[in-house]
Amino acid sequence: MISPTPEALQSFLDELNGTMCDRTDWGRVADYIPELADVPVDQFAISVALPDGQVLSAGRNDQPFSIQSVSKVFTLACVLGRIGDQLWTRVGREPSGTSFDSIVLLEREKGRPRNPFINAGALVTTDALLERRMPRETLAELLHFLRGAAEDDDIHIDKAVALSEKSTGHRNAALAHYLASFGNLRNPAELTLGTYFHQCAIAMTTDQLARAGRVLARFPDAPMQLSPQRARRINALMMTCGHYDGSGDFAFRVGLPGKSGVGGGILIIAPGKASIAVWSPGLNNYGNSKVGTEAADHVARFTGWSVFEG
Amino acid sequence: MISPTPEALQSFLDELNGTMCDRTDWGRVADYIPELADVPVDQFAISVALPDGQVLSAGRNDQPFSIQSVSKVFTLACVLGRIGDQLWTRVGREPSGTSFDSIVLLEREKGRPRNPFINAGALVTTDALLERRMPRETLAELLHFLRGAAEDDDIHIDKAVALSEKSTGHRNAALAHYLASFGNLRNPAELTLGTYFHQCAIAMTTDQLARAGRVLARFPDAPMQLSPQRARRINALMMTCGHYDGSGDFAFRVGLPGKSGVGGGILIIAPGKASIAVWSPGLNNYGNSKVGTEAADHVARFTGWSVFEG
Amino acid sequence: MISPTPEALQSFLDELNGTMCDRTDWGRVADYIPELADVPVDQFAISVALPDGQVLSAGRNDQPFSIQSVSKVFTLACVLGRIGDQLWTRVGREPSGTSFDSIVLLEREKGRPRNPFINAGALVTTDALLERRMPRETLAELLHFLRGAAEDDDIHIDKAVALSEKSTGHRNAALAHYLASFGNLRNPAELTLGTYFHQCAIAMTTDQLARAGRVLARFPDAPMQLSPQRARRINALMMTCGHYDGSGDFAFRVGLPGKSGVGGGILIIAPGKASIAVWSPGLNNYGNSKVGTEAADHVARFTGWSVFEG
Amino acid sequence: MISPTPEALQSFLDELNGTMCDRTDWGRVADYIPELADVPVDQFAISVALPDGQVLSAGRNDQPFSIQSVSKVFTLACVLGRIGDQLWTRVGREPSGTSFDSIVLLEREKGRPRNPFINAGALVTTDALLERRMPRETLAELLHFLRGAAEDDDIHIDKAVALSEKSTGHRNAALAHYLASFGNLRNPAELTLGTYFHQCAIAMTTDQLARAGRVLARFPDAPMQLSPQRARRINALMMTCGHYDGSGDFAFRVGLPGKSGVGGGILIIAPGKASIAVWSPGLNNYGNSKVGTEAADHVARFTGWSVFEG
Repeated sequence: MISPTPEALQSFLDELNGTMCDRTDWGRVADYIPELADVPVDQFAISVALPDGQVLSAGRNDQPFSIQSVSKVFTLACVLGRIGDQLWTRVGREPSGTSFDSIVLLEREKGRPRNPFINAGALVTTDALLERRMPRETLAELLHFLRGAAEDDDIHIDKAVALSEKSTGHRNAALAHYLASFGNLRNPAELTLGTYFHQCAIAMTTDQLARAGRVLARFPDAPMQLSPQRARRINALMMTCGHYDGSGDFAFRVGLPGKSGVGGGILIIAPGKASIAVWSPGLNNYGNSKVGTEAADHVARFTGWSVFEG
Repeated sequence: MISPTPEALQSFLDELNGTMCDRTDWGRVADYIPELADVPVDQFAISVALPDGQVLSAGRNDQPFSIQSVSKVFTLACVLGRIGDQLWTRVGREPSGTSFDSIVLLEREKGRPRNPFINAGALVTTDALLERRMPRETLAELLHFLRGAAEDDDIHIDKAVALSEKSTGHRNAALAHYLASFGNLRNPAELTLGTYFHQCAIAMTTDQLARAGRVLARFPDAPMQLSPQRARRINALMMTCGHYDGSGDFAFRVGLPGKSGVGGGILIIAPGKASIAVWSPGLNNYGNSKVGTEAADHVARFTGWSVFEG
Repeated sequence: MISPTPEALQSFLDELNGTMCDRTDWGRVADYIPELADVPVDQFAISVALPDGQVLSAGRNDQPFSIQSVSKVFTLACVLGRIGDQLWTRVGREPSGTSFDSIVLLEREKGRPRNPFINAGALVTTDALLERRMPRETLAELLHFLRGAAEDDDIHIDKAVALSEKSTGHRNAALAHYLASFGNLRNPAELTLGTYFHQCAIAMTTDQLARAGRVLARFPDAPMQLSPQRARRINALMMTCGHYDGSGDFAFRVGLPGKSGVGGGILIIAPGKASIAVWSPGLNNYGNSKVGTEAADHVARFTGWSVFEG
Repeated sequence: MISPTPEALQSFLDELNGTMCDRTDWGRVADYIPELADVPVDQFAISVALPDGQVLSAGRNDQPFSIQSVSKVFTLACVLGRIGDQLWTRVGREPSGTSFDSIVLLEREKGRPRNPFINAGALVTTDALLERRMPRETLAELLHFLRGAAEDDDIHIDKAVALSEKSTGHRNAALAHYLASFGNLRNPAELTLGTYFHQCAIAMTTDQLARAGRVLARFPDAPMQLSPQRARRINALMMTCGHYDGSGDFAFRVGLPGKSGVGGGILIIAPGKASIAVWSPGLNNYGNSKVGTEAADHVARFTGWSVFEG
């Protein structure tokens, strides 16, 4: 299948936005983070960054939202740049078969989380990035990476969201202390948690997120580059683990690596072809954006960009 | 990355065969199926079917081996052809996070196996293909499909292996009766088990298996075709679930959909580019071919065929 | 607290029978064994065997019912008589924390069931009693034991119930094959299952069951005797494991060793003081007799026989 | 069986002390609490409080040790005195089938711990006792109860041990935050944890502990009394849940309600007959005192006090 022209793609995105906005069932916004619970559910945005530098968009593509777990992809990229394959002694690379905040496997597997995209694994990744530095310094490095990748210095942390998580994040605190009990946190639990909550509170628009994702789509002209192997591997993890216990279904339906967040954002990579960001704040039963997932399905069908297409 | 020429690829395969045969650690053959326990461990074969009809090979590419769980891919293709998406009411599409013969998830999920590639799910798939017919008729349909896809009527069932499994297959019998207790078997457990054991006992060479895999690689000139969507979806399941609890690692290292069997075979699909079969009977800790997995890694690096490459 | 006189106890039992029969919520009969599903739910019986040889009763104390899992107590007594502590290499002595037919722990604990009163453990116990003999001979030994202990040769196996279980017992068949896969069955799974189904289908009245239980209550004049240590230990197992995942609650409320069956019977031992059988076929959520459990609570309060009383 | 005379019992205890002290395998002291790791392992003490007011002892019966989880029995008694059966809406009464600090069941059962003697359940009990008061006040109430029951005002909290736990108690912190995430903590996690660590750090001799246990043995002349029902029920919980996943074995071998702590102490109740405290700091694989468990076995055999004896 041949990729559509930018013009055809723009028309498709406009039409898609219309179809999505006509929906009546938007899913439910995450209610366990107070600041996110107030976000109106009936919103949709999509942006597609192409290899030639263009970004096509539709819907509320200039509305910043909380990227939440999508940040885990960029933290992973940063930490692999810092310590490389050493990370894999502390976290696995397998789908977990359980929900994003499950603590069950952690007991059975003695404190080594299954992969860097479930909460426990992301706490380890953040802890590895923190590495005896101050949270401020660590978050600055992550923001620097994101701003460089997206070529946009407006990307920032939403402090109100970060504090909102902090006051309610007992489940993540449990995971952090549990990891610590197995010696798999190197910093005080409070520092790692604080850094993690701030990282999740990064606010971006779909335009910004699609631009930042170019680093994974391996566009030759992207402002920042990962090594080919590193980009491939992160994409592989997004494919097998990017949607928690809905990862298999996303691969089955969409056929592209993706990473979702409970803020309703999804970053989707079509290697060599596009970096796609969708956003709609209502979630499905797996904690992934309901409308965003459906939009991704439509995009894959229209473009033929599934990696399983050949 | 540009695909290598057939000549370069043939040289690479010959060299790979040499490297692999120099190894001293071949893993351990599956010892719970008596007939497989006798297979000498120090064997290797690889075959690569290309879109132009060529099949390049190295090693013992004319040695038939027991395809075992690789058969699950073809049973799935057949049953989807018969009943389509109805199958998904009885089996899921998510990685299981547990070993191939685990019964734990089945209890928690009330008899609906996680995916069609773990044993419990494959029993349901076989049961759906059997569908009140006789095992003989069902197996004939499966063989017909395989022979047509591989253009080779020599593909057959190794009766000694089938009987060998039957006498020791208590774990599979437990899974079958457990599924039956939830009403998720439609035929008598003995018939479904008998069909399953015979399906797993199909013997093929890597040449035959690579040719049969063309149906998933979507070569325009392949003798048999699946619908594009069906091929994509089966490839997606192979990517997320094809290597049991080693699926994430295979995706991470190799970046291609694959399905392994305890006979030591692996079928690997590079959509649009190649259908690859490797075989080496010694297994790693996840029950996947040890040398075969490493060979797959080498092939992916040499060819740049990773779907995450772009 | 002083034990009540036989006269006071008889009055209490008559009154208890009246109270229980006035109930409107009897629980639900086990519907997964067809022959049991037809038993009218609104029935109650209680019998109390005393050290002096008297048996006091009320309700339908001459109505035979299927003792089901209560039989596990007597099989255990027989097999300990045969092979002694060797049994404990094959089965544990701990509460399972899971339901009676759970297969989860069995996977984690590699085929050694937690205790002899969950189904998996009872299958091992029956298998140990069978020990390369024919089922007929084994069942004859068990009946001989029960008839001797109860001084009543009318105790028999209800063949219709045994066959009824056999045709629907997929869950037990799964457990048996699973045990076999770990080498923890010594006889063909079909023989062990057949023996188990027949043992569970033994029919007894509460009078007969209370009399048989005297062997555990350690009455000096009982027709059959176990060693003091053996009786104590079986009582201990009944206390910690006799009501599946409702065992803790039974100990908390009633304070006496007891073993329930899905036929609605419960055998309760007040060591040195009484052997009590209650029956009412409707079950609570744990698969124990709903009305029988409440009656046991009343008996313990009235008599002060709780072992925790002092 | 008739209880031995005090003279015979004293001779037995002296002999038992000799036998125990000749041992070479004492188990291993808990190494995860630094202050406990330094306790010499080769120590033994036993004290038996009788209904007539006598306390018979042998070994190091005047050596204070950290009672740790034995405190859970007294916290439970206090909290039941305060809020009665309301407690059971927040914690269950069933054996857990898992280790003392397991978090697995908590996930499956949505934050309601199985029983008040595993760590998660004890945190809830402590939280219920705390009930918006200050930790200091709550601990004073508990000490007041213990000192009154033991008639000894020397009982105190070992601050060094409390601080030692606090700095390493990540597992308990994980449990507390996990409970909080389900709304099953009513006080800030830090306050509940602090109270819990101090309660566990209470230091007592076996003489003091045996005297305090009289409240559960229901001696008519004990200085403090619980209602008969409350004492029976706490004894029942000790029988089914008092030794974590070794509870069934303790009931099987010893036949008496008991509660162990990782400091090496065990409180054992023979209702109406004796309150027994044993101590030896080395632990077995279940986290219960190795030598203490064996001593309890000897005591039960010598005295015939098993509740299953009749």
